[in-house]
Amino acid sequence: MTLEKTSIRPGETTLPFDASTADDARLAFIGRIRSPWTDRTDCPKNMRVARETNQKARVEIDAPFRAALQNLEAGRHIHLLTWLHQSRRDLAVQKPRSAETASGTFALRSPVRPNPIGLHLVRLLDVDPASGQLVIDAIDVLDGTPLLDIKPYFDTVDRPSED
Amino acid sequence: MTLEKTSIRPGETTLPFDASTADDARLAFIGRIRSPWTDRTDCPKNMRVARETNQKARVEIDAPFRAALQNLEAGRHIHLLTWLHQSRRDLAVQKPRSAETASGTFALRSPVRPNPIGLHLVRLLDVDPASGQLVIDAIDVLDGTPLLDIKPYFDTVDRPSED
Repeated sequence: MTLEKTSIRPGETTLPFDASTADDARLAFIGRIRSPWTDRTDCPKNMRVARETNQKARVEIDAPFRAALQNLEAGRHIHLLTWLHQSRRDLAVQKPRSAETASGTFALRSPVRPNPIGLHLVRLLDVDPASGQLVIDAIDVLDGTPLLDIKPYFDTVDRPSED
Repeated sequence: MTLEKTSIRPGETTLPFDASTADDARLAFIGRIRSPWTDRTDCPKNMRVARETNQKARVEIDAPFRAALQNLEAGRHIHLLTWLHQSRRDLAVQKPRSAETASGTFALRSPVRPNPIGLHLVRLLDVDPASGQLVIDAIDVLDGTPLLDIKPYFDTVDRPSED
């Protein structure tokens, strides 16, 4: 793990500083993802693969934030924003194992980025505001990953305009 | 402004604490949005309205992060994640001016949330990695809003499955 976090592959370049030292703004963790994935080697690499596993997942919202679940309806799609806490934050150009060539971090969905925020579109299958428990169709992050936000999906703003 | 930031409307409730006091993780600002909107009353309330104005916008990426723009192609859709720095962070249930009833923060796309991260799907019209200048089709945030991340949009993960 230490080696993986500090070494780079051919074609990769680092930022001039490690973004984990920045303090431009601060976050509150609002809960945690509870997923079937406890090991990086098992964890789906993206939401398409996660859905194909047919493995549901849960979200636990911490008590102070449960009132904010009011009117969130099961059946709809939601965006989850997570904090990918195990990701390094110092790569400018990177070469994922699955990629043939290296690309800039902002051209990739890699979890390795200056601000390791994950964006996941999921279907909300069940929600219990009293206990803060949500059931979702799938997720592509490790069990225990902190949650930052829940945003309802809207076709009017979240779908690309037709070309 | 002071009144607006501390008062609540009928039906609204606050969190048991102000999330702006949290320090669970820290962010790096990677650049700024340059938009036509310098006043809250003019600023479009969502991306649908922003697109309808036919007003383009720009993104300025700070020098240390420009290398991460490599291979990001003009013409494609991208998600921008912004830090909505003027938003309060203490509301659990809120009633936007345009809404008939109050709803939990996580059932709304309001900028007021524990972590005021904005999610904006835009079309990238032009990109110059050397100067860090991007041109986008539209944006619904004030000029000067800090940028946290750029993620390419992919149909395979970012589009809801058909019902």
